[in-house]
Amino acid sequence: MSQPQIPEQVLDTQGDYAPGRRDEDSGEGTQCSHRMLSFSDALLSIIATVMILPVTHTEISPEQHFDKSIQKLLATRIAVYLMTFLIVTVAWAAHTRLFQVVGKIDDTLALLNLACMMTITLLPYTFSLMVTFPDVPLGIFLFCVCVIAIGAVQALIVGYAFHFPHLLSPQIQCSAHRALYRKHVLRIVLRGPVLCFAAAVFSLFFFPLSYLLMATIIFLPYVSKATSWCRDRLVGHQEPPAHPLEFTFDLHKPLSKERVEAFSDGVYAIVATLLILDICEDNVPDPKDVREKFRGSLVAALGVYGPRFLAYFGSFATVGLLWFAHHSLFLHVRRATRAMGLLNTLSLAFVGGLPLAYQQTSAFAQQPHDELERVRISCAIIFFASIFQLAIWTAALLHEAETLQPSVWFGGQEHAFMFAKLALYPCASLLAFASTCFLSGLSTAIFHLMQIAVPSAFLLLRLLVRLGQAGLWGLRSLRGLASPAHPWPGPTGETDSQSLLLPAP
Amino acid sequence: MSQPQIPEQVLDTQGDYAPGRRDEDSGEGTQCSHRMLSFSDALLSIIATVMILPVTHTEISPEQHFDKSIQKLLATRIAVYLMTFLIVTVAWAAHTRLFQVVGKIDDTLALLNLACMMTITLLPYTFSLMVTFPDVPLGIFLFCVCVIAIGAVQALIVGYAFHFPHLLSPQIQCSAHRALYRKHVLRIVLRGPVLCFAAAVFSLFFFPLSYLLMATIIFLPYVSKATSWCRDRLVGHQEPPAHPLEFTFDLHKPLSKERVEAFSDGVYAIVATLLILDICEDNVPDPKDVREKFRGSLVAALGVYGPRFLAYFGSFATVGLLWFAHHSLFLHVRRATRAMGLLNTLSLAFVGGLPLAYQQTSAFAQQPHDELERVRISCAIIFFASIFQLAIWTAALLHEAETLQPSVWFGGQEHAFMFAKLALYPCASLLAFASTCFLSGLSTAIFHLMQIAVPSAFLLLRLLVRLGQAGLWGLRSLRGLASPAHPWPGPTGETDSQSLLLPAP
Repeated sequence: MSQPQIPEQVLDTQGDYAPGRRDEDSGEGTQCSHRMLSFSDALLSIIATVMILPVTHTEISPEQHFDKSIQKLLATRIAVYLMTFLIVTVAWAAHTRLFQVVGKIDDTLALLNLACMMTITLLPYTFSLMVTFPDVPLGIFLFCVCVIAIGAVQALIVGYAFHFPHLLSPQIQCSAHRALYRKHVLRIVLRGPVLCFAAAVFSLFFFPLSYLLMATIIFLPYVSKATSWCRDRLVGHQEPPAHPLEFTFDLHKPLSKERVEAFSDGVYAIVATLLILDICEDNVPDPKDVREKFRGSLVAALGVYGPRFLAYFGSFATVGLLWFAHHSLFLHVRRATRAMGLLNTLSLAFVGGLPLAYQQTSAFAQQPHDELERVRISCAIIFFASIFQLAIWTAALLHEAETLQPSVWFGGQEHAFMFAKLALYPCASLLAFASTCFLSGLSTAIFHLMQIAVPSAFLLLRLLVRLGQAGLWGLRSLRGLASPAHPWPGPTGETDSQSLLLPAP
Repeated sequence: MSQPQIPEQVLDTQGDYAPGRRDEDSGEGTQCSHRMLSFSDALLSIIATVMILPVTHTEISPEQHFDKSIQKLLATRIAVYLMTFLIVTVAWAAHTRLFQVVGKIDDTLALLNLACMMTITLLPYTFSLMVTFPDVPLGIFLFCVCVIAIGAVQALIVGYAFHFPHLLSPQIQCSAHRALYRKHVLRIVLRGPVLCFAAAVFSLFFFPLSYLLMATIIFLPYVSKATSWCRDRLVGHQEPPAHPLEFTFDLHKPLSKERVEAFSDGVYAIVATLLILDICEDNVPDPKDVREKFRGSLVAALGVYGPRFLAYFGSFATVGLLWFAHHSLFLHVRRATRAMGLLNTLSLAFVGGLPLAYQQTSAFAQQPHDELERVRISCAIIFFASIFQLAIWTAALLHEAETLQPSVWFGGQEHAFMFAKLALYPCASLLAFASTCFLSGLSTAIFHLMQIAVPSAFLLLRLLVRLGQAGLWGLRSLRGLASPAHPWPGPTGETDSQSLLLPAP
């Protein structure tokens, strides 16, 4: 191949593999980690959520009421789902922190990251084993082996990144205390695996202790977050003790907002898609049935599935609007604190349960009993998914200077509108739940119609605000209230539009 | 609520709903569309891919060989998968183009987009109906209704965005020909729905014609892309005729690289996750079986699943590395032309088939027949998935000034290394396929071990390059070849390192 005159700046981005050279901003050998992180987020969120499928696919024959064995099977699968969800979010949070230290990647790091992902995908399986065979220590042993493998891969990533410091985030790269940083990061990465090693050893002769150790690993980050948050609330926020290094800033800083969004998007997207998968697998009638039972009329055969389609539209509307509320919420968020991360995880865990709600209410046509119980389960899932979203907003408001965009610090219409948006689903689901208690005639069909009607409530809310505002504006211009004494020319009517807005939902 | 003194710039981002005001860079009422687009990409890629699940879940009892009815069922499901994949990619491409015109969103647009997504999720179901009942026009009628609904929602989006022009992309916003733009965009958006309306009408009395019209809608963009590409290749690229507006630039410009990446990531992530779902659902032994068949030994019971785990690791390694190759490839890409988009779609369609490959080879332990056929199917799927990746790179090289980063224009080591990376899988799968023809002893186990071994080939390749380069470098410094006559001080040895590199795979 001929060697044309290559302009200088082109070569500068190429020569990264020449020994002894380090191109810190090279586009080639080192790569921006953005896409790899989005891919990891998508993968982890899908793994966390997809374990709801075995729950929804639990087959209960039409004539059979919930007996002991089915209750046990269902409880088992729900436990696997919840444990998987929690452990995957813990692994995701650790991954986020790790790649806040490692700023760039190269091919080796990308492959190591894939190895890490592969090990994480095995965690759900170890849970299935643990829950199916609670008396056999093999499940817990395999779980520990997985966690140790993840720790080993992450330690390799840390070691590699500190060996080629141009891969580190600029802050640490410039720091004089790089060796100390490495030690600290390694300690964080290897804490869980060391506990797991102990658990693996105990699993061989006294496995109940292993369960205890394992629970420590899963819940420690959450418990420590929650207690520190409660302490902050109770005794007021304490300044972290002065530290020679800026560890406390770098390693305990809030999760990156982008990755929280990416992870949440993955969960919402997979939940919305699992719904259509059920429709496609279950609601296509058998050609033989159509010929025999419906005299060849496909329309009549599909008519049987009518309630299921209603359930589908209702569930999709719910998932879509919960995503929409989450999206609106995070538009105002600048960064997510630990408490917000925890609340987001809880909200997502319930969002992941929505396919179960869908399956419960849509299966009603085939199994016409326990109608009110089914609606109640759905209401409860929706209520918890949405109330935790509201809690995120409340938690954000408590530290608004740190967490929110400046534009919502001082109240304002967006502020109030946000509250109205977030309060819509908790109120609606509570209302539906309450009506199951005194209206014995509430059917799943009405419930689904309510679900479909909620989006229009959103738009109505928006319209009301606009109309109210336009009216106020008109009034004010007429009365000359928008006088030049006010330092700002624009919407001075936040408090007024709030009082118009708040009773709206 | 008290009304503190609000700084001017804070108010500027708030007052977007005040009548008559337009804040073009407001963070509130209008929002950056980035997150909504990522969410749509995730949703669409999962919908496109998830239809492989019914294919892999087709139950074939162990003693049963492929008989007619099962072949038909399988063919049906594969047809649904492929048609869904194609139509969803068409819808995705249309969505991409639409939101290249609409630059920002507000709440109404976000809700309209959700409605659009909901309609798109119904498309796989209409295909299932069409394929299960090929003689009944209802499936095609419902399909047409869906497409018309999608068109209507998209037309609403266009109308709304042009009514509030601050939502448009800056280029169109500033253009003097906005009305003409709107007409043009509407024509593009409504072309498909109008054809579908005709198809819906025909479906009522002569439905074969509807199938023809439908095929036109699905394949028209691809065929026109392919023919224009072929023409360009054959007669040389013709300059587009001078147009009074800059339509040709805006509406026919290449797909945004970010969205191609996001869509591809979604497909790879869901494929990797579907694998673990199978493991968790099928490979947990029944407690009763363990007690009775294996005398309570869980380890022995799990031993039966050994080959399946091997298959899992092999398949995950393949998916992960295909993602890695795609990732490396798109690092060098600046923008994706239509031909590259088409090739990427084809590659992704085969990647989506990987769960089928996994299911075929992993089920071997239970159904020990047709071993070589199973391996061949897997090889073929991997071969096509990877050869289309290689084709993307080739297509990119043909227009390298337009499509690639400047750093790879002139060959260079990254260039050659890229070829080596992309050629690895086609070569390996061809080799495996060939060996099934003359080695009757090739087992699925050996095939999976080969799959697992490929990642080390990647690392080996990298190591070889480094060593070779270091050696060259040393030689050259000794011989004084890196003389100051060269205008650049760095790696002048691209051609040499290439000759070292190319025979490496």
